[in-house]
Parts: sequence; structure tokens; C-alpha cells
Amino acid sequence: MDAACQENTVRQMDLNSKMTVEELVTGMERCGFGARRLSQAVRIYEEMLSGDYTKFFTLSGAMVPAGMRNIVSGLMRDEHIDVLVTTGANLVHDVVESFSSHVLGTCEADDAALRSSGLSRIYDLYLSDEQFIKFEEVMQETLPESTTPISGREFLRLLGSKISDPKSILRTAYDCDIPVFCPALPDSMIGLQAWLKGQTTRILVDAFADIKEIVDICYEAKRAGVFIIGGGVPKNFTLQSMLVTPKSFELAVQLTTDTPEAGGLSGATLSEAVSWGKVAPKAGYVTVYGDATITLPLVASATLARLEGKKAGKEKGPR
Amino acid sequence: MDAACQENTVRQMDLNSKMTVEELVTGMERCGFGARRLSQAVRIYEEMLSGDYTKFFTLSGAMVPAGMRNIVSGLMRDEHIDVLVTTGANLVHDVVESFSSHVLGTCEADDAALRSSGLSRIYDLYLSDEQFIKFEEVMQETLPESTTPISGREFLRLLGSKISDPKSILRTAYDCDIPVFCPALPDSMIGLQAWLKGQTTRILVDAFADIKEIVDICYEAKRAGVFIIGGGVPKNFTLQSMLVTPKSFELAVQLTTDTPEAGGLSGATLSEAVSWGKVAPKAGYVTVYGDATITLPLVASATLARLEGKKAGKEKGPR
Amino acid sequence: MDAACQENTVRQMDLNSKMTVEELVTGMERCGFGARRLSQAVRIYEEMLSGDYTKFFTLSGAMVPAGMRNIVSGLMRDEHIDVLVTTGANLVHDVVESFSSHVLGTCEADDAALRSSGLSRIYDLYLSDEQFIKFEEVMQETLPESTTPISGREFLRLLGSKISDPKSILRTAYDCDIPVFCPALPDSMIGLQAWLKGQTTRILVDAFADIKEIVDICYEAKRAGVFIIGGGVPKNFTLQSMLVTPKSFELAVQLTTDTPEAGGLSGATLSEAVSWGKVAPKAGYVTVYGDATITLPLVASATLARLEGKKAGKEKGPR
Amino acid sequence: MDAACQENTVRQMDLNSKMTVEELVTGMERCGFGARRLSQAVRIYEEMLSGDYTKFFTLSGAMVPAGMRNIVSGLMRDEHIDVLVTTGANLVHDVVESFSSHVLGTCEADDAALRSSGLSRIYDLYLSDEQFIKFEEVMQETLPESTTPISGREFLRLLGSKISDPKSILRTAYDCDIPVFCPALPDSMIGLQAWLKGQTTRILVDAFADIKEIVDICYEAKRAGVFIIGGGVPKNFTLQSMLVTPKSFELAVQLTTDTPEAGGLSGATLSEAVSWGKVAPKAGYVTVYGDATITLPLVASATLARLEGKKAGKEKGPR
Repeated sequence: MDAACQENTVRQMDLNSKMTVEELVTGMERCGFGARRLSQAVRIYEEMLSGDYTKFFTLSGAMVPAGMRNIVSGLMRDEHIDVLVTTGANLVHDVVESFSSHVLGTCEADDAALRSSGLSRIYDLYLSDEQFIKFEEVMQETLPESTTPISGREFLRLLGSKISDPKSILRTAYDCDIPVFCPALPDSMIGLQAWLKGQTTRILVDAFADIKEIVDICYEAKRAGVFIIGGGVPKNFTLQSMLVTPKSFELAVQLTTDTPEAGGLSGATLSEAVSWGKVAPKAGYVTVYGDATITLPLVASATLARLEGKKAGKEKGPR
Repeated sequence: MDAACQENTVRQMDLNSKMTVEELVTGMERCGFGARRLSQAVRIYEEMLSGDYTKFFTLSGAMVPAGMRNIVSGLMRDEHIDVLVTTGANLVHDVVESFSSHVLGTCEADDAALRSSGLSRIYDLYLSDEQFIKFEEVMQETLPESTTPISGREFLRLLGSKISDPKSILRTAYDCDIPVFCPALPDSMIGLQAWLKGQTTRILVDAFADIKEIVDICYEAKRAGVFIIGGGVPKNFTLQSMLVTPKSFELAVQLTTDTPEAGGLSGATLSEAVSWGKVAPKAGYVTVYGDATITLPLVASATLARLEGKKAGKEKGPR
Repeated sequence: MDAACQENTVRQMDLNSKMTVEELVTGMERCGFGARRLSQAVRIYEEMLSGDYTKFFTLSGAMVPAGMRNIVSGLMRDEHIDVLVTTGANLVHDVVESFSSHVLGTCEADDAALRSSGLSRIYDLYLSDEQFIKFEEVMQETLPESTTPISGREFLRLLGSKISDPKSILRTAYDCDIPVFCPALPDSMIGLQAWLKGQTTRILVDAFADIKEIVDICYEAKRAGVFIIGGGVPKNFTLQSMLVTPKSFELAVQLTTDTPEAGGLSGATLSEAVSWGKVAPKAGYVTVYGDATITLPLVASATLARLEGKKAGKEKGPR
Repeated sequence: MDAACQENTVRQMDLNSKMTVEELVTGMERCGFGARRLSQAVRIYEEMLSGDYTKFFTLSGAMVPAGMRNIVSGLMRDEHIDVLVTTGANLVHDVVESFSSHVLGTCEADDAALRSSGLSRIYDLYLSDEQFIKFEEVMQETLPESTTPISGREFLRLLGSKISDPKSILRTAYDCDIPVFCPALPDSMIGLQAWLKGQTTRILVDAFADIKEIVDICYEAKRAGVFIIGGGVPKNFTLQSMLVTPKSFELAVQLTTDTPEAGGLSGATLSEAVSWGKVAPKAGYVTVYGDATITLPLVASATLARLEGKKAGKEKGPR
């Protein structure tokens, strides 16, 4: 093989015991399979965060209970997220974490016994009935009332304004004026609490109002990138919103455990999204297959390190 | 091993070339792994359909484009579904199938070329831009207007009344007075069309109104069973609705490709749902892992055969 | 869409309660995702079994304990398998099933308690220590001795001659003179028993002798087809044997739960095998994703029905 | 919740841009799902490497082509592996990497075109026909001849002695006197080359001889731990070898993409291995689900950092 070709060859990873996450990811660049995909995700995410992109971030799966909340709210506070689209469950758990913590449990628990003890299980984590009771109190106090229809986004903004924990995703969104969309809001304990509170007062959220708001953001974006965790409604809602504009996402990263074979949207490739016009044919995109509680910290930490390195380089001025 | 134990042993399957689906499933009863799970699903579903259960059915994944539409609308027409909870996408494709058919394609397509040809891909199926244009026309004509807030369920009932295709899920629901819930309705092309039409007229759907309606059904159910295809919002919305009542699902079947390890709700075991009080500790439940385009036809066909056999037996009277 | 195109569209499946497996599979032909793949597997397998192909069959995963043994030995007896390549475990369980049955258990067992009870678990099946003791007796009696090196295939032929159960895979292979290859024979309880017996007598199997035998079969094959269950060593050994000849497999079906993303051979696509020259560029091939305890009975039963239909058609003579 | 309980709660991860891999893993200890499993793997592996354990390491999947070779040979050289059990493919690629490098490709390649160009694909990596030709030359020169039967382990030791690349797994094994077992040696290009060379000379490997050698190691081990990458024959062979002794593995880590549902050994839980007596009921064990090209570097790097920290702490002496 000639020299040109050799740049295109596998370079076996070397480890050292003091290596940073960024060094680890750099070592993955000339590996195969998931390692290479992960290093490409960092490259694309670095480009997204350092360029002139409107940055969408979609969050599915039980990421907040699993310990990923500060990563998300940190990215928001650092201006790395312009639009957040998420599930109701993650917002419920965000509220719960603002006054308590999830419990470390085991995935091999006796579930009937847990119920008797007043514990609800999320794989290897538990929530106690006391936490749900407190959650109910908080919700009944803070859920925003409205007699005229408001959007889900406005509803969540008002809710966020009532949370005092600065690490909260909803509070951070309020502080930083970042829109949060939750297209399946009724499908959560926030929805159930809204129904409960709605029996004595009026809470009127217009189911379709969010669409106008997110589509407007898509229209106004000069260029757009999306970071997708776990598929689901947040992924689809974000991609379909871009679909109605003449634009497409030019950068996209997807962290998922789903594979394409069964035809569901969560596992659909980003290439498939090209056929819809959701993602640009020449976009930079990659899917990293695996548990996002492992891949998100890796990708985010390495990307932040690169951004800082770049900034430090610039501050030193031209050589 | 003694006799008692021998009843509890594997019996190797025997095939014959004329066997019915029901015979195949019977042959799986004393096998291991997926085969046994599938045979258990048929037993539980048979019990659900022949007993005094309020029967919930949740539908996720691109089941309608993939050819499962008539199975669902057939189960509805035969009174085997009392409540349907589904995704917006399945309803969009239900409408599309009421005036045209999805195209058989390949999952290895060149997606940029498909876009140039005006085709959008769903794994190995395509939709043409013409179909979307026609869909838009249909939606702009038929989407129900309302100046006072209505529930999503009522919105879908009105929409169903405008579809003439008798095989349509929405039309069948209208004909048979089966409530259809779509908790993430904005996350679909129906949502996008509602936004579009809402620019010149008024379409007001109260995001939380469905909760009251489904919770009421849960309260009124004497006993309840649920058949879950593919997780997602439909699964969670159905299970959380039962959660607020003193009852639990007593029978449950889940067909899914997701496994529990990554902690998401789609892959959560039905045992986990016991810890929440969504499923009863003594419930009969089983998860069948695999592509529902294979497992749904198998389970449904075998269950229908057993029901018919039972009916035929009864008609003959006591021996 | 014009008429030509319409033949290429999805046709929604209709069920009926008396349908045969073959009718079910026919109904899957114009569906999407796994259903379509499964129907294609039947078409390819029918072509393989009715044409002039040397038919390779590879068997991985705990298929024999799970109840698939008679399907395999039945295919052998019906001349639908010319060469069997399998794992040691499946052969061990074939011997066990020749004198006893596996026990139906649960995948949620307390494994320490099982050990105390003398039960070893295979997902939801158990084997008792008594069965292993009997297995040891059988092996110590029947394992073929040899002072000059023999091939693994000859070793298994001699072993098969000592088994009396006519449903046994090894016995059927002996009866029908079908070569059985087990390239990882030491990786099994047969291997352990051979080591044990080898302490007092001589058992000499030449590790590489099988290669010549299977490569010769590949060379002599006019055309070749392969039916792959579950990847692993049997898949690779079979494909690599064809690799050294100028030929390639012209028909291939793969039933597997593994997807390609992690780069392992078990999940590798059959397309990847084309790049190696193992499978012909113009071959008919398909992978069906899912648990083979579900997909194998489906595919085999439907294929046998088609073959019989074809035969019956021929017997009637030309119309 | 009281104080005791609070130690048992989720602690949301915080990232910083300069964090080391070890700090990242420490941050995962009080998270859920894969992150927690991964942090447990590091704890168990640290205990294994710093205690008085005979350390088994099993390697499946295309780990060497994917860039994991130096990690494995590095662990060997640092005395962290006492016994290596692997697939033939990883050894073939180890030899190839000793004189050339794999090529970075794409998983979306046109496989027929690759074949025309003389490239064979392993997911997103390629090997050229030239590399195979060179491999054949090397093998024909170096494959050890023997007229009396030798074990596979001895065969591989002799082969390793002929490789000069110090990063080679086989060479490192030779240098450090680490036994390498490859129970499916015929299932590889080494096997094919042995068959080829055997046509003109004598290469006699006794298929069962390795069993005695590895069982002896198991018997002699004071305590034993195992680090499993990817299941397959290496996992089973290692576990079954311990089975015949009165001992069990007391520490075990498994990195795999396979889940248990389909009943195969690769995806079997380590708990299942407890029912067999392969793993001790009170063992420390964990499975990390995911692509080992991501999880192996993470676990290995963090574990090495902890070992070094411990050593540094000891060198400073008691405070």
C-alpha cells in the first residue's frame, strides 16, 4: 500500500492510565465499529457546537433518573443547546431530582415485594411512594393555570420558573430562555397531575400550538444541527418540524440502542432521514449504537475538551 | 424423573407440511426461549378475549405501512379491542392506505436518490410525494374544526367519520364506537396538517382532555387486559392510566424488539410494571421478543383459531 | 401509480383462524420488515430444496434443548440437508435427548438455589446432574477410541452409530450418511468426556482433518446453498470452506438475533460475505432477524408445504 | 430518607473537559443502567488484577481488526492475563497486523464492487487480497510441522515464536509464556493454511489435548477470575474447563452485545453460569452490554489508572 493509503488504515489503540477522555476518543478515530462511530460523533458534535448552527437536542429514555441530568442542564447553561425536545418522563424525574434523589437498586428485584415496600422500579433504580406524594404536592402548587389556551412550551416555561434547583433542566431552560418541547406531555405524571388539578381549576394547553413554535425556529435557523438521544417522539417531532421547511439538518448525531431491522423510527438510520428531506444529503451524520449512559458522557466530555482546546488555541493568538 | 416431572419436560416439535398456525403454536408450548413465550402469549390472549376483560391494545412502530392494518381493524370489528392507543404515524399511514398503498422497496436504497425521485423511505417501504400531497388534500378537507376545546379522542372520532375505507382503523373505530387515543398526536403529519389548517381556521384540542377519558374507562373496567405492540408512548400512556386507579392489568402481552438493559420504558419488563402497580402481582403476562410483523400475525391467528374452536365446542353442547 | 407499480405495493395481511403456516407466510410476501424477510427466506429455501444444490445447514445456539431437534433430524431424513455443521453443545444435548428430556424451567430462577438442587440452567430450561451422570456413562461407553488420527467427522459418525434413538441428529446422520462437522468439538462436554476417557485409552482426533473433508465437498458441489441458524463457528467454518474453491454459495438464508453494528461474524450480513467471495454477487440471500425457535419452524413448515404442493402438482401431470 | 439511604442514591454525573477516563468511570458509580454496570466492571477488574487470582481472558468478535490488539497484548505484557482463550480469526488478524494494517472502509460499501477490487470487508474495515497472499506466504513458512500429535496451545506457541512484531498477541504470549487456547482453530484461515501445508508435510494437532492443559491450570489456580469479551467458543471453553474442577470463578466481567432472551450462550447471564457451578454463588460479577470497542478501552484504562494509584499510594508508605 502506498503512503496515501496508509493514512487510511487502522491504528491500534494504545492506552495509558492517565489518559483523558478526549485522548481516549482520539485513539478511537482509526479503529473500527462502535469506537470509530463514537469518535466521529465527537467530530460532528464539535463542529456543531463551534459553528453557526441552531442546536437541537432530543432526549428520550430514562436519562434523568440514570444520572445524566447535569450533563444536559450543563450543556444548556453553556449555550450548547438552543432547543430541547424531550419526554414527559424525563421532566417528571427532573422535578423529582429537584427535591430528592432516585434510589440505587437492582434489576433483579422482586417486583411484588418492591410494590409492598412502596417502591417503583426503573430497571436498576427505584422511586419511593413518598417521592411521588411530594411530587404531587409540588405539581398541585406549581402547575400553571390558564383559561386561554397556551402552548406546551409556555406551560413548561412557567413550570420551570417555579423550580429553584439550579441544576434542573426545566429551571435552566427558564433561566437561559431555551424552549423545551414535550410533544407527548399527557403521557407522563405531569399530564396526570394536570388532569387532577384541572378538576378544580382550568389548565388549557393547545395540543398543536407547539408545532408553530418549533417550525418557526426551524425556519429562522441559518443552519441546523441535531443531537439525538434514544429515538422516540422527541426524535420524530424534531425531524418532522424541519421537514416542512425548505431546509434540512446539516449535522446530526444519534445515540441509540435500537437497530433498523424492525422498521421503527427509533432505530431508523439517519440515512433514511435523508430520503425524507429531514437530513441533508451532504450532512455529516453518525449513529452510535449503545447505552447512552455510557456514550453520552464520553461524547460530551470529549467534545467539551476539544472546544476548550480550540478556544485556548485562539486566545494564544496567531503564531 | 417421575411422571409429574415428565409433564414438565421439553417435547421436541414435529412439523408437518399442512399444519395450521394454531398447530404450530401448540407445538411451541413445550419448547424453550421465544417459541415458549409465543405460545404463552396465545394462551394469555385467548383468556383475555374470551373472558370479561376490558381489552386495551397499544400499537407502536410502523405497523400499518408494514401490512398489519387489517389485522388491527379486524380485531376491532370482531370486538377484540375495546380501547386503542397508538402513535400518530400509524394513523397517518392508516389514512394514506385508505386512498393508496405503500410501495415495496429495499432497505439498501440510495437515500439521496430516493429523495430526488420524491420517495420517502420507511426501512424497506416507500411513500411518494404524490401520496403526501393527496394526504394533505384529504386532511385539509376533513380535519375537524373546533372553537371550543375538544379531546384528542373526539378529534380522531370526527376524523374517522370522514374516511370511507371500511378497513381503515380510524373508520372502524368510528363504526364500532371504539375510543382511539393518540397521546403524541402533534408528533405526526396529522399534527402538521392541523397546524397548517389552523392558520386559517380554528382547531383546538385540549392536550390533557384524553386523560380523563381513558382514566374513566380504567375505573369502569371490571377487569382489564392489555396487548402491547412495541412500547413507546402508547404503552406508557395505557399503563399510567391504570396506575391512578386502585386496579391493575390482570393480563398482559407485549411484543417488542427492545430488551430491558438500557432502562427505557419500551424494553421494560412487565414484571417492572408490577412494582409500579400497573400490572397485578398475580397477573398472567409475557413478553415475546421479536419483530411484531412476524409475531403479531402468529399470535392473532392462533388465538382466533382457539376462540373459534371453543365456540364450536360450546355450540355442540355438553358431551 | 400505474399497474406495474401496483404489483409492487404493500398488500395488507388478512388473517383467518384456520390458516396454514404456508398461507400465513404467503400473506407476508407483500408486507414490510421481518415479515417480508421471512417470506423471502421461504422462497429461497424452497428453491434450494427443489433444485440441484448441495445443501449445507449450520446450527448454533441452544436449538436442541429448545425443541428444534426433530425439525433438524427430520430435514436430514428427508434429504434436505447434505452437510451439517454444528456446535458441540447441540450434539451433547442431542445425546441427552436420546435418553431423557430437558426440563421446562424459568429464566427468573434463583441460580444458586438451582445449583443446590443439582440443576443447570439454559435460559428457561434445566438439566439435572443425573442427566449429566448418565451422559458421562454413555460417553465413556461409546466414545470411539483410535490410536491413529481420525477426523472429527469420522469421530462423530462412529458416535452416531452407537445411538439408538431414531430422532437423534447424530443417529440420523449415521443412517443417512450425512457428514456432521463440529469444528469446535473440544469446546463441549463431548470434548471433556473425550479428555476423561483419553486418560485410560487413546482417542486421537486430528484437529485439521475435517477441513479437507468439507473442502472436498465444496469442490464437488455443482451448486451450493446454505441455511444458517445463529452464526458462530458453524457459519464461519462453512463459509470459509467455500472460500478456498472457485465457487460461492448461490443461495443463502440466515436466521439470527445478531445485528451487524458490532462487527462480529455472527451478525455480519450475507452481503458482507459477497465481498469475501463466500456468497455469489448474484446469489439469492436473506437474513431473518429474530429468535430461531420461532422463525425456523415457520420457515421449515412453509417450505415443506410448498415442496409438497409442487410435487402434488407434478404428479397430476401437465394440464 | 435517612442518611444511610442517601449513600445509596443516584448522584448526577458532572463532566469537565479535562477529566480522565478514570474520573469519568468514577462518576458513573452512582448512575443507572450501563454506566453503573461499567463502573462495577472496573471495580471487579481492579480486584481481579490486584489480588491473587489466576486471570483468564477470553476474546471473541473482530477485536484485533478493530484496533484492540495493543490493549490485549499490553495487558499480557503487564502480567494482567495468565491465560488467553480466543478465536482463530483474532489470531489470523494478529498475524496480518504483524506485517500490515487493516484498511478503514465503510459499512455501506458495494460488496460486489469490493470483491472486484480484491477487498474483503469486516463491517467498516477491509483486507486486501495482497494481505491474504502475504499471510499465506508467512503461514506456509512458519506453521509448525509435527509428526507426533501436539496440542493447539503448543502449536500456537511455536507459531508465536516466529512472529517478530513485539505488539503481536501471539508473540507476546510466547515472550511472556502465556498459554493461548483456540478451541476452534480449524475454523480460521490458520486452519485453512494448516490444511494446505499439510498436503506436503505433516501437521498433527490433537483436537482434545488442550483440554488437559487448561483443566490443569484451573485445578492449580488458587482463585480464579475471568474477563470475557463477546461470548462465543472462548467464553464457553473457559467456563466449562472450570466446571470439571471443584472450584468456580470468583470474579467475572463480561462485555457483550448479546442479551439472554434467545437462549444462546453468548448472551447468557453470569448468573446462569452460577447454576452450572462455573461461577461461584458469591462471586463478584457483572455484564456490560455494548460494543466492546467502546467498553474495553474504557474499562481497561480506568482499571490501570486505579492500579497505578494504588501502587503509588503504597510506595508512599503508611501515613
